[in-house]
Amino acid sequence: MESEHFFKHKHLISLSDLSVEDLNLVLLTAKSFKEISSRSIKKVPTLRGRTVINLFFEPSTRTRLSFEIAAKRMSADTFNVSASTSSATKGESLVDTARNLEAMNPDMIIIRHSSSGAPNLLKRHIKTSVINAGDGTHEHPSQGLLDMMTVLEHKGSLEGLKIAIIGDIAHSRVAHSDIIGFTKMGASVSVSGPATMVPVGLEQLGARVCLQPEDAVADADVVMALRIQRERVMDPLIPSLREYATFFGINPKMLKLAKPDALIMHPGPINRGVEIDPVIADGPHSVIIDQVTNGVAVRMALLYLLMGGE
Amino acid sequence: MESEHFFKHKHLISLSDLSVEDLNLVLLTAKSFKEISSRSIKKVPTLRGRTVINLFFEPSTRTRLSFEIAAKRMSADTFNVSASTSSATKGESLVDTARNLEAMNPDMIIIRHSSSGAPNLLKRHIKTSVINAGDGTHEHPSQGLLDMMTVLEHKGSLEGLKIAIIGDIAHSRVAHSDIIGFTKMGASVSVSGPATMVPVGLEQLGARVCLQPEDAVADADVVMALRIQRERVMDPLIPSLREYATFFGINPKMLKLAKPDALIMHPGPINRGVEIDPVIADGPHSVIIDQVTNGVAVRMALLYLLMGGE
Amino acid sequence: MESEHFFKHKHLISLSDLSVEDLNLVLLTAKSFKEISSRSIKKVPTLRGRTVINLFFEPSTRTRLSFEIAAKRMSADTFNVSASTSSATKGESLVDTARNLEAMNPDMIIIRHSSSGAPNLLKRHIKTSVINAGDGTHEHPSQGLLDMMTVLEHKGSLEGLKIAIIGDIAHSRVAHSDIIGFTKMGASVSVSGPATMVPVGLEQLGARVCLQPEDAVADADVVMALRIQRERVMDPLIPSLREYATFFGINPKMLKLAKPDALIMHPGPINRGVEIDPVIADGPHSVIIDQVTNGVAVRMALLYLLMGGE
Repeated sequence: MESEHFFKHKHLISLSDLSVEDLNLVLLTAKSFKEISSRSIKKVPTLRGRTVINLFFEPSTRTRLSFEIAAKRMSADTFNVSASTSSATKGESLVDTARNLEAMNPDMIIIRHSSSGAPNLLKRHIKTSVINAGDGTHEHPSQGLLDMMTVLEHKGSLEGLKIAIIGDIAHSRVAHSDIIGFTKMGASVSVSGPATMVPVGLEQLGARVCLQPEDAVADADVVMALRIQRERVMDPLIPSLREYATFFGINPKMLKLAKPDALIMHPGPINRGVEIDPVIADGPHSVIIDQVTNGVAVRMALLYLLMGGE
Repeated sequence: MESEHFFKHKHLISLSDLSVEDLNLVLLTAKSFKEISSRSIKKVPTLRGRTVINLFFEPSTRTRLSFEIAAKRMSADTFNVSASTSSATKGESLVDTARNLEAMNPDMIIIRHSSSGAPNLLKRHIKTSVINAGDGTHEHPSQGLLDMMTVLEHKGSLEGLKIAIIGDIAHSRVAHSDIIGFTKMGASVSVSGPATMVPVGLEQLGARVCLQPEDAVADADVVMALRIQRERVMDPLIPSLREYATFFGINPKMLKLAKPDALIMHPGPINRGVEIDPVIADGPHSVIIDQVTNGVAVRMALLYLLMGGE
Repeated sequence: MESEHFFKHKHLISLSDLSVEDLNLVLLTAKSFKEISSRSIKKVPTLRGRTVINLFFEPSTRTRLSFEIAAKRMSADTFNVSASTSSATKGESLVDTARNLEAMNPDMIIIRHSSSGAPNLLKRHIKTSVINAGDGTHEHPSQGLLDMMTVLEHKGSLEGLKIAIIGDIAHSRVAHSDIIGFTKMGASVSVSGPATMVPVGLEQLGARVCLQPEDAVADADVVMALRIQRERVMDPLIPSLREYATFFGINPKMLKLAKPDALIMHPGPINRGVEIDPVIADGPHSVIIDQVTNGVAVRMALLYLLMGGE
């Protein structure tokens, strides 16, 4: 069925831009590419001679590395531009930076930026393909896709699943992409977090907001803990990490409310003992490491499809 | 004619080291390489297995990236060494750093350094090819060449052209390389800037110094605005950015004095509204983006010719 | 003889893990690979499609670059992860960082860390090959091997040689790897340094401790000066750099005590005039630059053998 669908997108800014058919095609392509990374020779010539620029205005190990590995395994040439060394420090506008990069004929610009909307601004001003690798509190669509791939791999289908996302929903671009993606595929998403961390209007994205995390986790097929950023205690949006862990941390007691085979997920990096109990993070139902592995596969698929593969 | 000229240089420190025949050969080679970057598969095997080290003692996005893209499109292996992570912070001398890099058998060291003369020091102590990617207030020869290529592309010849360069001439290694290069090719270069930013002795390089920017721009074929570094206001070499923009900024009124088809250039990154009016920077005669594109082509040509291509 | 020995190790944490046969195999393999770096096309397809991650928690130019050059000359894909940009700043544990990297299917993780034991911790928690590129004051085994290769190259055999190592033995992971490696190969190692810089128990590693540097240098075949880190004066472990240079610096007078053809070594970067007199560092018996060249060859051999070459 998917084999007859062609991917018509050039950019990936938000999962809301992708149809169910698009999402299925990305997930199917990622599944077929995953095997490449388990070979001894992890390299296919598919994107040889393509130029991929990682334009990161926020520090990142995992996402930058995941995209870089994905690109090189497809034989593309990759280039890292980070904010600290970029012209941004010289007062150049984002659009000027992008136009200048575009003048060097890249095939893809992967951008991470602390401002929501930066990738969209880029897309409107340049002709090069753009992937949003996380913008402010807006979206992180490739993370959403790797989460969907991971659940699909273990559950066979996303249709009708109950997904619980617990934590700082307001500041989580991962949560926003997950809500959009999972909902679109027929799953229902329930979220919960401290009142200061749950924004108004989430229902419009399709999420159910629960005041108590227990309500979100009840009968869930998937329980995802979001990272608590320590600086939020300073804000202060929460009184202490200890209190957060007590009321919102995913621990064995909380997990008893979910389905017995519920998957445990986390976008990483983990604060052990804060948003998730180490026993759970390292437990038999944790697919946290699978998420990272699937991240490379999803990004290989995105690079391939967005640069014109079929 | 050029096809009978062989490039005998191993290093590129200053444009004053190149003859007119050398300059023509670089520009001709760059022209022929430019097309590679517009292909779908932007890669030729010419420099496969060559080792190119970018040794940057000053932060740079554009120039470092341009050289890295140029090298990889020629299939060379590139390695980035930046000052913040280099042994320089451990008190090692520049010559020792260079000798140690040389011991790893690179084919090319591309150096940017805040001290004028650093690339020349390197060249005298190592046998590896050296390209000056900008040294202090001295020269930035590959920028000079990409400027020449851009003008040549639009005007057909450099002979007899009138080039105006406006701004902080004293601190601009770009201006110095441009003055040397354009003059050598038969163009005449007029410069202007605040008195604190125009050094004594520019006439010896072949430039005409104008007290009023209007005199430099009058009847010009090319008008180049130099970047005003914001720290110069602190020096203070100029009283304010606003005052600078009023008297030396390239705006429609100033530009009326130039030829109607005068090209607008800027080495980037641009301070919009300071040294150049956005209307001009984005206008029909602006070739600022072409400069960046040609930068990759010129650097491909330099890597090729300096490493022994014919 | 070595051709019948197979390398059974997957990790290189300490030279004490390698047998004499292992050491000989690495040195023989390095010798055969050295020639590749002197070719015009410095590239062999041996490790094509392998993923090598440089995970550096301490700044380093030389070692990171040496490994990166070694890997790329074997056609591996390399990825740099440095502490400043890594998840370490987000509070992630080292083991979690490593497990996450491992999830991206690398073939090799090369780690430098300020904590002694970090590479060993990694090795115990992941299945990927690990190379210790320097951990705290513990070991730097690839540096030990390149030192052994350099002496072997010039002396033909290590058996029965007298090696003097002068300097801050306590803080030198290089010295520790050298003592283990050279001793294992039948050389005798004498060390000397200020009393505050010579730890108790070195004799257990097989070294002879001399109170006076003259005693260590007397009749030596090899004299190695260790780098004095300037911050040690602040500690203060030594009263001043000048006093250190007077009593422990390798100068012509000190060197008269060694064999006339004694090799001069230094792990770099050099503090000229502190631990070594420039006349000696640049003199005819200095093999300091050879050490750097051999570093690439030794690392090519290690990557090859640890990733399953024969």
